[in-house]
Amino acid sequence: MAAYPITVNADPASYATYLEAGWGLKNYWYPALFSHELPEGGLKGVEIGGMPILLRRAKGKIYALSDQCVHRGVKLSAKPTCFTDDTVSCWYHGFTYDVADGKLVSIVAAPDDPLIGRVRLRTYPVQELKGIIFVFVGDRNYATPPIADDLPFRPPMDEEFRASHPLDENTVLLGIHRTVNSNWRLGVENGFDPGHVLIHRDNILILASGRSMALGYRPVNDKAIRAFEGDGPKGLMNMYGSGNYEPVVKNERLNIQCAARADFKFTGVRTSMFLPGVLMVENFPQAPVAQYEWYVPIDDKRHEYWQVLAAWCNSPEEREAFEFRFKHYYEPVALRDFNDHDVSARQAMQPFYDNGGWENEALCSLDAVIVEWRQFVARHARGIQKAPRS
Amino acid sequence: MAAYPITVNADPASYATYLEAGWGLKNYWYPALFSHELPEGGLKGVEIGGMPILLRRAKGKIYALSDQCVHRGVKLSAKPTCFTDDTVSCWYHGFTYDVADGKLVSIVAAPDDPLIGRVRLRTYPVQELKGIIFVFVGDRNYATPPIADDLPFRPPMDEEFRASHPLDENTVLLGIHRTVNSNWRLGVENGFDPGHVLIHRDNILILASGRSMALGYRPVNDKAIRAFEGDGPKGLMNMYGSGNYEPVVKNERLNIQCAARADFKFTGVRTSMFLPGVLMVENFPQAPVAQYEWYVPIDDKRHEYWQVLAAWCNSPEEREAFEFRFKHYYEPVALRDFNDHDVSARQAMQPFYDNGGWENEALCSLDAVIVEWRQFVARHARGIQKAPRS
Amino acid sequence: MAAYPITVNADPASYATYLEAGWGLKNYWYPALFSHELPEGGLKGVEIGGMPILLRRAKGKIYALSDQCVHRGVKLSAKPTCFTDDTVSCWYHGFTYDVADGKLVSIVAAPDDPLIGRVRLRTYPVQELKGIIFVFVGDRNYATPPIADDLPFRPPMDEEFRASHPLDENTVLLGIHRTVNSNWRLGVENGFDPGHVLIHRDNILILASGRSMALGYRPVNDKAIRAFEGDGPKGLMNMYGSGNYEPVVKNERLNIQCAARADFKFTGVRTSMFLPGVLMVENFPQAPVAQYEWYVPIDDKRHEYWQVLAAWCNSPEEREAFEFRFKHYYEPVALRDFNDHDVSARQAMQPFYDNGGWENEALCSLDAVIVEWRQFVARHARGIQKAPRS
Repeated sequence: MAAYPITVNADPASYATYLEAGWGLKNYWYPALFSHELPEGGLKGVEIGGMPILLRRAKGKIYALSDQCVHRGVKLSAKPTCFTDDTVSCWYHGFTYDVADGKLVSIVAAPDDPLIGRVRLRTYPVQELKGIIFVFVGDRNYATPPIADDLPFRPPMDEEFRASHPLDENTVLLGIHRTVNSNWRLGVENGFDPGHVLIHRDNILILASGRSMALGYRPVNDKAIRAFEGDGPKGLMNMYGSGNYEPVVKNERLNIQCAARADFKFTGVRTSMFLPGVLMVENFPQAPVAQYEWYVPIDDKRHEYWQVLAAWCNSPEEREAFEFRFKHYYEPVALRDFNDHDVSARQAMQPFYDNGGWENEALCSLDAVIVEWRQFVARHARGIQKAPRS
Repeated sequence: MAAYPITVNADPASYATYLEAGWGLKNYWYPALFSHELPEGGLKGVEIGGMPILLRRAKGKIYALSDQCVHRGVKLSAKPTCFTDDTVSCWYHGFTYDVADGKLVSIVAAPDDPLIGRVRLRTYPVQELKGIIFVFVGDRNYATPPIADDLPFRPPMDEEFRASHPLDENTVLLGIHRTVNSNWRLGVENGFDPGHVLIHRDNILILASGRSMALGYRPVNDKAIRAFEGDGPKGLMNMYGSGNYEPVVKNERLNIQCAARADFKFTGVRTSMFLPGVLMVENFPQAPVAQYEWYVPIDDKRHEYWQVLAAWCNSPEEREAFEFRFKHYYEPVALRDFNDHDVSARQAMQPFYDNGGWENEALCSLDAVIVEWRQFVARHARGIQKAPRS
Repeated sequence: MAAYPITVNADPASYATYLEAGWGLKNYWYPALFSHELPEGGLKGVEIGGMPILLRRAKGKIYALSDQCVHRGVKLSAKPTCFTDDTVSCWYHGFTYDVADGKLVSIVAAPDDPLIGRVRLRTYPVQELKGIIFVFVGDRNYATPPIADDLPFRPPMDEEFRASHPLDENTVLLGIHRTVNSNWRLGVENGFDPGHVLIHRDNILILASGRSMALGYRPVNDKAIRAFEGDGPKGLMNMYGSGNYEPVVKNERLNIQCAARADFKFTGVRTSMFLPGVLMVENFPQAPVAQYEWYVPIDDKRHEYWQVLAAWCNSPEEREAFEFRFKHYYEPVALRDFNDHDVSARQAMQPFYDNGGWENEALCSLDAVIVEWRQFVARHARGIQKAPRS
């Protein structure tokens, strides 16, 4: 952890790697499905960084393999077909793969085919954490790090304003995911952006909770951003709650002044972005809950937007109360209404960035942390994903 | 004004510039919106020749600016946001531009940003004429001509069969506009085409008005087409009503003969095409009304089709009568039913012309004026629009 | 007719021509329309191998011409317009062509145009066979072969298990056609594939008819495939009913065994594929009916899937009975439900083969006949169709 100098108008050459990462970062754990989306015996396909991936749960264990039959290229998940617990078969010609190592172990109608044992589907490391199935996507022989390295930093328990973290024992995670039509980097940058409060000022969540937002927040010293560059998670944290950011409450040229109710009741709210693009918003939508977001690249034009809330639940009653509140308040008002504005904003940027915007944008002082993020990724990313077949 | 020799089968090299004008002609006044589409305080986006353009009306004045925020490229018009009369702000991060000169005058949450005053949105000359807002699209420093130069020729008031013209003091304009999926040149050529009457012969407008059309009309001498090449509007006029065109009433090979009712009651009807592609059909759908059409390029595959009727109205009663007739007769029967056939025809040509048709078409004697038009454009156009970012 | 050695894992170079045939084979008779789709006086457009083709029936005779006006490229079939029996006119500007030789014989409004007699639409040989209109698509001066050469081999009448053939005098053909979103070769290979029974095992047709399918069928000697390489039709025949194929009834690794009812009641069923891609399935769905299929290339991503049943009908009553059975049983249960699985499978392969799949597939022993087919096409095809304008 180090205090961090803020720079603006950095030369794009200083984050060239980031500009090439249209298909995502590789060698990271990404969420693939909620656990409830893959029941015992289930089989489902997803796509991450251009790779079709099949998830299968059998006898309580989860497996992840390439979702493209080696024979004639169809998706195995198009029509789930399993004759045994330890295999998955292609619905078309019966090519059958061992779920553990991906080897072709049989062909339904050609049990003695010479191809058997000689070809395989690629497998992916997979693990489940508090109701989310994560897949490790990247190079074949990359030594998989602990998932804690690919989640946001877990603050000490006694830190002031400490909010719920996925790795806390009593944390329950609830959330949704959906496909957004923008590059994943526009998702990350919007999520982490201290300058976009304008789109949220009139949202139900803000009004209903009796809060109000300033026009914006600007860093006032070099402690506004903390960088995590040592072992473990790597990322940046905006220290909003710390006096290092100052609310902007008026703009004289535009004759705007925040209303008397602009009392900035965002005590303890901090936003962090960790590699490979995981947002943590502590004490939001409401302390001590925290919101986590992933912007999982599907291809270079779409990402799967994961929105997850973490809350401590020390009893079945507390869990039930969180589920009730999630269903009737957090999901409709925060994850939908509030974040729908973010989704629209990302999609509004996509045509520009898909046509040379990375070279033609005009960043300003509000974008300091975004530039930091780009340079941070360029410096620390384990690798960048290439377009399939390119 | 000069009599004009007619040529056919001209070498495409004689209108090479025209063949390159897929994105439109530049340095011309184009209709952008009807006045009623932009009420006081309103803000709306259009696209002309590949340029996103924002129109804003404040304190009775109209402004036109680029509709793409310099910051991160979103369309300002996606969510109209104005804090003062003299500015427009981006809904996303609050970049705020002076509507008059396009300069960045503030950023909502960063009023002191060094970028302020240093970047700007491009502005466009704009003016309103009888209910239509025109924007001048072209080179930044082009000296804008009077709009009269970019409208069809205005005949002397005492000319026989003189019809209503937009510049006549007592003229009222009523119309519609809609997007057509063809290149703008196919719109122009269809509108000006003396050979396409076949698609209109059985239309409601013709039958309901007790008229009938010949099989076609052919120029019989070199006065059939008048060219306007001096100062002021530049264009071509088909002198249908003048005896220089002859109706074709039979085709022996096909055993067709126009019915007895083919009495060609099109007294005074003339069709003219002026740069940058403005059609005038005098005494149509009914004398002394005249129909005006623009085929405003949106990109190289679509144009905004403007259909406007001009009528003299010397009193509120006459205006009301014109509005009544427009709503219940001219719009449904002429602008919709009749012109819908033109829209279909243009869209039917699009696949061919989008795949090499300009080099593979086989023009005939009916196309003489179309060839003239192409050469005329190549000779007189102020400039051709290039594809954005090309 | 010759016994045929089976090879697997052949070098793709051995069928290079096949890999280039994305737009189809040329110089063959293809089905274009059912006769009932083109009534007397009718005019309809189809597309085969990238060529728009117009079919016209006048005074009992059928004509086929290019469906693209030479003038400005619109499809004549978009709005059928015929002034005489021996011509077809363009609905737009009245270009009028002789249906027999395609010559421009008149222009409605310009009967004396110098272009008349000097340009023409391409014509295509056309013929009708038992309710199907066939068009010969290929090189302009290719000597058209008898249609019998482009249909499956017609077995001697006294052959065991002889099923109905289109060329038998008393055969009635009934069928449907529909557009499938895959390359035509994926249609052919799926239709002829002895390894894809897995997708059909649980289909209504199999269960309703009291039959059951094995896991697959494997060739056991070099007589399993017959090749027809002499004069007349050229193709391959899978001799399923002959003892040269053996049903696969169990797979020990997967612990599958066919049920007792797996009695393989497919007596006499044989599948053959003839150039240019015509499937014959004898004694299917039910002896002595036979199913014929064409996979007519539309472009390189779509084919028109023709499914036709042939039955001998020796009286009006027998014909009526066949029609009744076709409508209420064969069409819904065989051509729809059963073959819908084939359609899905072809479409599931398309993304893979449209992105390099031909070089990346991993064929197995089940694909022996498919490899034979590819090599056979490479050796015998009269020509391959090129992409239009390429």
